[in-house]
Amino acid sequence: MRQAYQIQLADLGDHGARMCDVASTAMRDASTALFNADLTLAEQVIGMDVQLDEMRASAETSALELLALQSPVASDLRAVVAAIWIVADLQRMGTLAIHVAKAARRRHPRTVVPAEIKPIFERMSSVALHLSGRAAEVLRTRDLDIAGGMNAEDDLMDDLHGQMFAALMSPSWSHGVPAAVDLALLGRFYERYADHAVAVARRVTFLVTGENVGGDTTVLLSPPE
Amino acid sequence: MRQAYQIQLADLGDHGARMCDVASTAMRDASTALFNADLTLAEQVIGMDVQLDEMRASAETSALELLALQSPVASDLRAVVAAIWIVADLQRMGTLAIHVAKAARRRHPRTVVPAEIKPIFERMSSVALHLSGRAAEVLRTRDLDIAGGMNAEDDLMDDLHGQMFAALMSPSWSHGVPAAVDLALLGRFYERYADHAVAVARRVTFLVTGENVGGDTTVLLSPPE
Repeated sequence: MRQAYQIQLADLGDHGARMCDVASTAMRDASTALFNADLTLAEQVIGMDVQLDEMRASAETSALELLALQSPVASDLRAVVAAIWIVADLQRMGTLAIHVAKAARRRHPRTVVPAEIKPIFERMSSVALHLSGRAAEVLRTRDLDIAGGMNAEDDLMDDLHGQMFAALMSPSWSHGVPAAVDLALLGRFYERYADHAVAVARRVTFLVTGENVGGDTTVLLSPPE
Repeated sequence: MRQAYQIQLADLGDHGARMCDVASTAMRDASTALFNADLTLAEQVIGMDVQLDEMRASAETSALELLALQSPVASDLRAVVAAIWIVADLQRMGTLAIHVAKAARRRHPRTVVPAEIKPIFERMSSVALHLSGRAAEVLRTRDLDIAGGMNAEDDLMDDLHGQMFAALMSPSWSHGVPAAVDLALLGRFYERYADHAVAVARRVTFLVTGENVGGDTTVLLSPPE
Protein backbone atom coordinates (compact mmCIF):
# COMPACT_ATOMS: atom_id res chain seq x y z
CA MET A 1 0.00 0.00 0.00
CA ARG A 2 2.83 2.33 0.88
CA GLN A 3 4.32 1.83 -2.59
CA ALA A 4 1.01 2.39 -4.36
CA TYR A 5 0.63 5.53 -2.33
CA GLN A 6 4.06 6.81 -3.39
CA ILE A 7 3.27 6.14 -7.04
CA GLN A 8 -0.04 7.94 -6.83
CA LEU A 9 1.59 10.86 -5.07
CA ALA A 10 4.21 11.05 -7.82
CA ASP A 11 1.40 11.06 -10.42
CA LEU A 12 -0.15 13.94 -8.56
CA GLY A 13 3.19 15.74 -8.78
CA ASP A 14 3.36 15.21 -12.55
CA HIS A 15 -0.19 16.43 -12.91
CA GLY A 16 0.69 19.51 -10.85
CA ALA A 17 3.75 20.15 -13.02
CA ARG A 18 1.60 20.07 -16.17
CA MET A 19 -0.88 22.45 -14.57
CA CYS A 20 2.03 24.72 -13.61
CA ASP A 21 3.17 24.64 -17.26
CA VAL A 22 -0.30 25.77 -18.34
CA ALA A 23 -0.26 28.60 -15.79
CA SER A 24 3.19 29.63 -17.08
CA THR A 25 1.97 29.63 -20.68
CA ALA A 26 -1.02 31.72 -19.64
CA MET A 27 1.20 34.27 -17.87
CA ARG A 28 3.72 34.36 -20.73
CA ASP A 29 1.01 34.99 -23.32
CA ALA A 30 -0.86 37.44 -21.08
CA SER A 31 2.35 39.45 -20.67
CA THR A 32 2.97 39.45 -24.42
CA ALA A 33 -0.65 40.55 -24.97
CA LEU A 34 -0.17 43.29 -22.39
CA PHE A 35 3.08 44.64 -23.79
CA ASN A 36 1.96 44.47 -27.45
CA ALA A 37 -1.73 45.35 -26.95
CA ASP A 38 -2.53 42.05 -28.69
CA LEU A 39 -6.29 41.51 -28.32
CA THR A 40 -6.37 38.08 -29.99
CA LEU A 41 -3.73 36.71 -27.65
CA ALA A 42 -5.45 38.28 -24.63
CA GLU A 43 -8.74 36.58 -25.58
CA GLN A 44 -6.90 33.28 -26.00
CA VAL A 45 -5.48 33.50 -22.47
CA ILE A 46 -8.87 34.45 -21.03
CA GLY A 47 -10.29 31.30 -22.66
CA MET A 48 -7.73 29.15 -20.83
CA ASP A 49 -9.83 29.26 -17.65
CA VAL A 50 -11.74 26.19 -18.87
CA GLN A 51 -8.55 24.15 -19.24
CA LEU A 52 -7.23 25.29 -15.86
CA ASP A 53 -10.50 24.44 -14.19
CA GLU A 54 -10.53 20.96 -15.75
CA MET A 55 -6.95 20.34 -14.64
CA ARG A 56 -7.77 21.49 -11.14
CA ALA A 57 -10.85 19.28 -10.94
CA SER A 58 -8.87 16.32 -12.20
CA ALA A 59 -6.02 16.88 -9.71
CA GLU A 60 -8.57 17.29 -6.97
CA THR A 61 -10.19 14.00 -7.89
CA SER A 62 -6.79 12.27 -7.79
CA ALA A 63 -6.09 13.68 -4.34
CA LEU A 64 -9.52 12.57 -3.12
CA GLU A 65 -9.00 9.08 -4.56
CA LEU A 66 -5.70 8.88 -2.77
CA LEU A 67 -7.44 9.81 0.48
CA ALA A 68 -10.34 7.42 -0.06
CA LEU A 69 -8.47 4.37 -1.35
CA GLN A 70 -5.29 4.56 0.71
CA SER A 71 -6.67 6.17 3.88
CA PRO A 72 -3.24 7.63 4.58
CA VAL A 73 -2.43 8.70 8.11
CA ALA A 74 -0.03 11.07 9.84
CA SER A 75 2.62 12.50 7.53
CA ASP A 76 1.14 10.88 4.41
CA LEU A 77 -2.20 12.47 5.19
CA ARG A 78 -0.64 15.89 5.65
CA ALA A 79 1.11 15.37 2.33
CA VAL A 80 -2.16 14.85 0.50
CA VAL A 81 -3.61 17.95 2.11
CA ALA A 82 -0.51 19.88 1.06
CA ALA A 83 -1.05 18.54 -2.48
CA ILE A 84 -4.61 19.92 -2.46
CA TRP A 85 -3.23 23.33 -1.54
CA ILE A 86 -0.61 23.11 -4.27
CA VAL A 87 -3.45 22.69 -6.74
CA ALA A 88 -5.13 25.75 -5.23
CA ASP A 89 -1.92 27.76 -5.71
CA LEU A 90 -1.62 26.63 -9.31
CA GLN A 91 -5.18 27.56 -10.16
CA ARG A 92 -4.74 30.96 -8.54
CA MET A 93 -1.61 31.50 -10.69
CA GLY A 94 -3.71 30.79 -13.78
CA THR A 95 -6.42 33.19 -12.59
CA LEU A 96 -3.85 35.94 -12.03
CA ALA A 97 -2.52 35.44 -15.58
CA ILE A 98 -6.09 35.80 -16.81
CA HIS A 99 -6.43 39.05 -14.82
CA VAL A 100 -3.37 40.37 -16.70
CA ALA A 101 -4.94 39.36 -20.03
CA LYS A 102 -8.21 41.06 -19.06
CA ALA A 103 -6.35 44.30 -18.32
CA ALA A 104 -4.84 44.12 -21.83
CA ARG A 105 -8.30 43.54 -23.33
CA ARG A 106 -9.97 46.29 -21.28
CA ARG A 107 -7.64 49.01 -22.59
CA HIS A 108 -7.25 47.72 -26.15
CA PRO A 109 -6.15 49.22 -28.55
CA ARG A 110 -4.32 51.44 -26.08
CA THR A 111 -1.14 50.18 -24.43
CA VAL A 112 -1.45 49.80 -20.67
CA VAL A 113 2.26 50.00 -19.84
CA PRO A 114 4.01 53.29 -20.75
CA ALA A 115 7.50 52.98 -22.27
CA GLU A 116 9.35 54.42 -19.27
CA ILE A 117 7.99 51.81 -16.86
CA LYS A 118 7.97 48.93 -19.34
CA PRO A 119 11.46 47.64 -18.38
CA ILE A 120 10.28 47.11 -14.78
CA PHE A 121 7.19 45.22 -15.94
CA GLU A 122 9.20 43.14 -18.40
CA ARG A 123 11.48 42.13 -15.56
CA MET A 124 8.55 41.37 -13.28
CA SER A 125 7.06 39.18 -15.99
CA SER A 126 10.39 37.47 -16.59
CA VAL A 127 10.98 36.79 -12.88
CA ALA A 128 7.39 35.52 -12.49
CA LEU A 129 7.81 33.11 -15.42
CA HIS A 130 11.18 31.92 -14.20
CA LEU A 131 9.72 31.21 -10.77
CA SER A 132 6.79 29.23 -12.16
CA GLY A 133 9.19 27.31 -14.42
CA ARG A 134 11.20 26.45 -11.32
CA ALA A 135 8.03 25.45 -9.45
CA ALA A 136 7.16 23.01 -12.26
CA GLU A 137 10.68 21.54 -12.10
CA VAL A 138 10.36 21.14 -8.34
CA LEU A 139 7.01 19.40 -8.79
CA ARG A 140 8.57 17.02 -11.36
CA THR A 141 11.91 16.31 -9.74
CA ARG A 142 11.43 17.19 -6.04
CA ASP A 143 14.87 18.75 -6.27
CA LEU A 144 15.17 20.79 -3.10
CA ASP A 145 18.19 22.74 -4.33
CA ILE A 146 16.00 24.26 -7.01
CA ALA A 147 13.31 25.01 -4.43
CA GLY A 148 15.82 26.70 -2.12
CA GLY A 149 17.20 28.81 -4.96
CA MET A 150 13.82 30.45 -5.55
CA ASN A 151 13.95 32.74 -2.52
CA ALA A 152 16.47 35.12 -4.07
CA GLU A 153 14.24 35.56 -7.12
CA ASP A 154 11.25 36.15 -4.89
CA ASP A 155 13.20 38.94 -3.17
CA LEU A 156 13.96 40.36 -6.61
CA MET A 157 10.22 40.41 -7.39
CA ASP A 158 9.54 42.32 -4.17
CA ASP A 159 12.26 44.76 -5.11
CA LEU A 160 10.81 45.29 -8.61
CA HIS A 161 7.35 45.70 -7.12
CA GLY A 162 8.75 48.43 -4.85
CA GLN A 163 10.44 50.13 -7.82
CA MET A 164 7.15 50.07 -9.69
CA PHE A 165 5.31 51.79 -6.82
CA ALA A 166 8.06 54.37 -6.49
CA ALA A 167 7.71 55.19 -10.21
CA LEU A 168 3.91 55.51 -10.02
CA MET A 169 4.02 57.60 -6.84
CA SER A 170 6.80 59.88 -8.11
CA PRO A 171 5.96 63.55 -8.77
CA SER A 172 7.45 63.05 -12.24
CA TRP A 173 4.77 60.47 -13.17
CA SER A 174 3.14 61.94 -16.28
CA HIS A 175 0.58 59.31 -17.32
CA GLY A 176 -2.22 60.28 -15.01
CA VAL A 177 -4.37 58.43 -12.53
CA PRO A 178 -6.10 55.79 -14.68
CA ALA A 179 -2.79 54.41 -15.98
CA ALA A 180 -1.32 54.37 -12.47
CA VAL A 181 -4.34 52.51 -11.08
CA ASP A 182 -4.12 49.90 -13.84
CA LEU A 183 -0.42 49.41 -13.25
CA ALA A 184 -0.71 49.18 -9.46
CA LEU A 185 -3.19 46.34 -9.84
CA LEU A 186 -1.10 44.65 -12.55
CA GLY A 187 1.98 44.86 -10.35
CA ARG A 188 0.03 43.16 -7.60
CA PHE A 189 -0.99 40.34 -9.99
CA TYR A 190 2.64 39.61 -10.90
CA GLU A 191 3.75 39.74 -7.29
CA ARG A 192 0.96 37.41 -6.14
CA TYR A 193 1.73 35.00 -9.02
CA ALA A 194 5.34 34.84 -7.82
CA ASP A 195 4.22 34.32 -4.21
CA HIS A 196 2.11 31.33 -5.23
CA ALA A 197 4.96 29.80 -7.28
CA VAL A 198 7.23 30.07 -4.24
CA ALA A 199 4.50 28.58 -2.04
CA VAL A 200 4.27 25.57 -4.39
CA ALA A 201 7.99 24.91 -4.05
CA ARG A 202 7.80 25.28 -0.26
CA ARG A 203 4.93 22.85 -0.04
CA VAL A 204 6.86 20.30 -2.13
CA THR A 205 9.84 20.76 0.19
CA PHE A 206 7.50 19.95 3.04
CA LEU A 207 6.22 16.88 1.18
CA VAL A 208 9.77 15.61 0.72
CA THR A 209 11.31 16.44 4.08
CA GLY A 210 8.24 16.47 6.29
CA GLU A 211 9.68 19.62 7.74
CA ASN A 212 8.81 23.23 7.38
CA VAL A 213 11.62 25.23 5.87
CA GLY A 214 10.85 28.14 8.15
CA GLY A 215 10.89 26.00 11.27
CA ASP A 216 7.27 26.88 11.99
CA THR A 217 5.25 23.68 12.02
CA THR A 218 2.22 25.30 10.43
CA VAL A 219 3.60 27.65 7.80
CA LEU A 220 3.91 25.25 4.92
CA LEU A 221 0.55 23.66 5.40
CA SER A 222 -1.06 27.05 5.49
CA PRO A 223 -3.63 27.85 2.83
CA PRO A 224 -2.69 29.84 -0.25
CA GLU A 225 -2.39 33.54 0.44
CA MET B 1 -18.97 6.32 13.36
CA ARG B 2 -21.27 8.25 11.13
CA GLN B 3 -22.62 10.08 14.17
CA ALA B 4 -19.17 10.81 15.56
CA TYR B 5 -18.27 12.14 12.16
CA GLN B 6 -21.28 14.47 12.14
CA ILE B 7 -20.42 15.80 15.61
CA GLN B 8 -16.82 16.43 14.64
CA LEU B 9 -17.92 18.17 11.45
CA ALA B 10 -20.29 20.38 13.49
CA ASP B 11 -17.38 21.25 15.83
CA LEU B 12 -15.38 22.21 12.79
CA GLY B 13 -18.27 24.50 11.75
CA ASP B 14 -18.31 26.18 15.18
CA HIS B 15 -14.58 26.63 15.05
CA GLY B 16 -14.93 28.16 11.58
CA ALA B 17 -17.65 30.51 12.82
CA ARG B 18 -15.38 31.75 15.62
CA MET B 19 -12.58 32.26 13.14
CA CYS B 20 -15.01 34.17 10.90
CA ASP B 21 -15.92 36.38 13.90
CA VAL B 22 -12.24 37.17 14.40
CA ALA B 23 -11.85 38.06 10.70
CA SER B 24 -14.93 40.32 10.99
CA THR B 25 -13.51 42.06 14.06
CA ALA B 26 -10.23 42.55 12.23
CA MET B 27 -11.98 44.08 9.21
CA ARG B 28 -14.26 46.27 11.36
CA ASP B 29 -11.32 47.66 13.35
CA ALA B 30 -9.14 47.99 10.24
CA SER B 31 -11.88 50.06 8.59
CA THR B 32 -12.25 52.27 11.67
CA ALA B 33 -8.47 52.71 11.75
CA LEU B 34 -8.54 53.58 8.05
CA PHE B 35 -11.35 56.13 8.26
CA ASN B 36 -10.08 57.79 11.45
CA ALA B 37 -6.32 57.49 10.81
CA ASP B 38 -6.08 55.61 14.12
CA LEU B 39 -2.56 54.20 14.36
CA THR B 40 -3.07 52.35 17.65
CA LEU B 41 -6.08 50.48 16.30
CA ALA B 42 -4.26 49.71 13.03
CA GLU B 43 -1.35 48.20 14.96
CA GLN B 44 -3.77 46.14 17.02
CA VAL B 45 -5.33 44.65 13.87
CA ILE B 46 -1.92 43.93 12.36
CA GLY B 47 -1.06 42.00 15.55
CA MET B 48 -4.11 39.76 15.06
CA ASP B 49 -2.24 37.65 12.50
CA VAL B 50 -0.91 35.46 15.32
CA GLN B 51 -4.43 34.67 16.56
CA LEU B 52 -5.70 33.99 13.03
CA ASP B 53 -2.78 31.70 12.33
CA GLU B 54 -3.35 29.76 15.55
CA MET B 55 -7.05 29.36 14.75
CA ARG B 56 -6.23 28.18 11.26
CA ALA B 57 -3.68 25.65 12.51
CA SER B 58 -6.16 24.34 15.07
CA ALA B 59 -8.99 24.01 12.49
CA GLU B 60 -6.56 22.32 10.13
CA THR B 61 -5.60 19.84 12.84
CA SER B 62 -9.29 19.07 13.50
CA ALA B 63 -9.90 18.45 9.81
CA LEU B 64 -6.85 16.18 9.61
CA GLU B 65 -7.97 14.25 12.69
CA LEU B 66 -11.36 13.80 11.09
CA LEU B 67 -9.67 12.39 8.01
CA ALA B 68 -7.30 10.15 9.96
CA LEU B 69 -9.68 8.79 12.58
CA GLN B 70 -12.87 8.46 10.57
CA SER B 71 -11.39 7.70 7.15
CA PRO B 72 -14.46 9.22 5.53
CA VAL B 73 -15.24 8.30 1.94
CA ALA B 74 -17.22 9.74 -0.94
CA SER B 75 -19.35 12.75 0.02
CA ASP B 76 -18.04 12.85 3.60
CA LEU B 77 -14.54 13.00 2.29
CA ARG B 78 -15.35 15.84 -0.08
CA ALA B 79 -17.00 17.61 2.85
CA VAL B 80 -13.79 17.54 4.88
CA VAL B 81 -11.83 18.85 1.91
CA ALA B 82 -14.42 21.63 1.54
CA ALA B 83 -13.94 22.38 5.25
CA ILE B 84 -10.21 22.73 4.72
CA TRP B 85 -10.89 25.28 1.97
CA ILE B 86 -13.34 27.16 4.20
CA VAL B 87 -10.50 27.61 6.67
CA ALA B 88 -8.31 28.89 3.84
CA ASP B 89 -11.01 31.44 2.90
CA LEU B 90 -11.32 32.60 6.50
CA GLN B 91 -7.60 33.07 6.93
CA ARG B 92 -7.44 35.02 3.69
CA MET B 93 -10.23 37.30 4.96
CA GLY B 94 -8.14 38.01 8.06
CA THR B 95 -5.08 38.73 5.91
CA LEU B 96 -7.07 41.17 3.75
CA ALA B 97 -8.26 43.00 6.90
CA ILE B 98 -4.61 43.25 7.95
CA HIS B 99 -3.75 44.69 4.52
CA VAL B 100 -6.35 47.43 5.15
CA ALA B 101 -4.82 48.14 8.57
CA LYS B 102 -1.34 48.30 7.03
CA ALA B 103 -2.54 50.90 4.51
CA ALA B 104 -3.83 53.00 7.42
CA ARG B 105 -0.49 52.64 9.22
CA ARG B 106 1.58 53.38 6.12
CA ARG B 107 -0.06 56.80 5.55
CA HIS B 108 -0.47 57.81 9.19
CA PRO B 109 -1.10 60.58 10.28
CA ARG B 110 -2.59 61.38 6.88
CA THR B 111 -6.06 60.09 6.00
CA VAL B 112 -6.06 57.63 3.12
CA VAL B 113 -9.69 58.08 2.07
CA PRO B 114 -10.66 61.60 0.89
CA ALA B 115 -14.05 62.90 2.12
CA GLU B 116 -15.73 62.79 -1.30
CA ILE B 117 -15.09 59.05 -1.78
CA LYS B 118 -15.50 58.10 1.88
CA PRO B 119 -19.23 57.25 1.58
CA ILE B 120 -18.41 54.58 -1.05
CA PHE B 121 -15.71 53.06 1.16
CA GLU B 122 -17.95 53.16 4.23
CA ARG B 123 -20.58 51.23 2.29
CA MET B 124 -17.98 48.76 0.99
CA SER B 125 -16.81 48.19 4.55
CA SER B 126 -20.39 47.83 5.79
CA VAL B 127 -21.32 45.33 3.05
CA ALA B 128 -18.11 43.38 3.65
CA LEU B 129 -18.82 43.13 7.38
CA HIS B 130 -22.42 42.18 6.82
CA LEU B 131 -21.35 39.41 4.45
CA SER B 132 -18.81 37.99 6.89
CA GLY B 133 -21.44 38.18 9.68
CA ARG B 134 -23.74 36.16 7.45
CA ALA B 135 -20.98 33.68 6.66
CA ALA B 136 -20.45 33.10 10.40
CA GLU B 137 -24.21 32.53 10.84
CA VAL B 138 -24.20 30.06 7.96
CA LEU B 139 -21.25 28.22 9.53
CA ARG B 140 -23.12 28.04 12.86
CA THR B 141 -26.63 27.25 11.67
CA ARG B 142 -26.20 25.81 8.15
CA ASP B 143 -29.22 27.92 7.28
CA LEU B 144 -29.28 27.87 3.48
CA ASP B 145 -31.76 30.75 3.24
CA ILE B 146 -29.15 33.01 4.76
CA ALA B 147 -26.53 31.63 2.37
CA GLY B 148 -28.80 32.23 -0.62
CA GLY B 149 -29.51 35.78 0.48
CA MET B 150 -25.85 36.74 0.28
CA ASN B 151 -25.69 36.94 -3.50
CA ALA B 152 -27.58 40.26 -3.70
CA GLU B 153 -25.11 41.82 -1.28
CA ASP B 154 -22.23 40.46 -3.26
CA ASP B 155 -23.66 42.16 -6.35
CA LEU B 156 -23.91 45.37 -4.33
CA MET B 157 -20.20 45.06 -3.47
CA ASP B 158 -19.33 44.68 -7.16
CA ASP B 159 -21.44 47.74 -7.91
CA LEU B 160 -19.71 49.81 -5.20
CA HIS B 161 -16.32 48.61 -6.44
CA GLY B 162 -17.28 49.83 -9.93
CA GLN B 163 -18.40 53.21 -8.52
CA MET B 164 -15.09 53.52 -6.72
CA PHE B 165 -13.11 52.94 -9.92
CA ALA B 166 -15.30 55.41 -11.81
CA ALA B 167 -14.56 58.05 -9.15
CA LEU B 168 -10.79 57.41 -9.26
CA MET B 169 -10.68 57.39 -13.05
CA SER B 170 -12.84 60.50 -13.44
CA PRO B 171 -11.20 63.65 -14.88
CA SER B 172 -12.55 65.47 -11.80
CA TRP B 173 -10.41 63.35 -9.45
CA SER B 174 -8.32 65.93 -7.56
CA HIS B 175 -6.30 63.88 -5.10
CA GLY B 176 -3.51 62.78 -7.36
CA VAL B 177 -1.95 59.48 -8.25
CA PRO B 178 -0.66 58.19 -4.90
CA ALA B 179 -4.10 58.46 -3.27
CA ALA B 180 -5.77 56.78 -6.25
CA VAL B 181 -3.27 53.90 -6.19
CA ASP B 182 -3.84 53.37 -2.44
CA LEU B 183 -7.60 53.41 -2.90
CA ALA B 184 -7.61 51.05 -5.91
CA LEU B 185 -5.73 48.47 -3.85
CA LEU B 186 -7.95 49.05 -0.80
CA GLY B 187 -11.05 48.61 -2.94
CA ARG B 188 -9.68 45.33 -4.15
CA PHE B 189 -9.09 44.16 -0.55
CA TYR B 190 -12.73 44.83 0.39
CA GLU B 191 -14.01 43.15 -2.75
CA ARG B 192 -11.85 40.06 -2.24
CA TYR B 193 -12.89 39.88 1.41
CA ALA B 194 -16.54 39.80 0.28
CA ASP B 195 -15.75 37.16 -2.36
CA HIS B 196 -14.24 34.88 0.28
CA ALA B 197 -17.22 35.37 2.65
CA VAL B 198 -19.57 34.36 -0.18
CA ALA B 199 -17.34 31.39 -1.01
CA VAL B 200 -17.57 30.21 2.61
CA ALA B 201 -21.38 30.24 2.47
CA ARG B 202 -21.35 28.40 -0.87
CA ARG B 203 -19.05 25.72 0.47
CA VAL B 204 -21.32 25.23 3.49
CA THR B 205 -24.28 24.93 1.12
CA PHE B 206 -22.35 22.21 -0.66
CA LEU B 207 -21.60 20.50 2.65
CA VAL B 208 -25.31 20.46 3.50
CA THR B 209 -26.84 19.61 0.14
CA GLY B 210 -23.97 17.78 -1.52
CA GLU B 211 -24.82 19.87 -4.54
CA ASN B 212 -23.22 22.82 -6.13
CA VAL B 213 -25.43 25.88 -6.14
CA GLY B 214 -24.21 26.92 -9.54
CA GLY B 215 -24.91 23.53 -11.12
CA ASP B 216 -21.24 23.11 -11.95
CA THR B 217 -19.96 20.04 -10.16
CA THR B 218 -16.58 21.53 -9.50
CA VAL B 219 -17.23 25.16 -8.60
CA LEU B 220 -17.86 24.82 -4.90
CA LEU B 221 -15.01 22.51 -4.24
CA SER B 222 -12.67 24.82 -6.04
CA PRO B 223 -9.82 26.33 -4.08
CA PRO B 224 -10.04 29.84 -2.66
CA GLU B 225 -9.49 32.49 -5.30
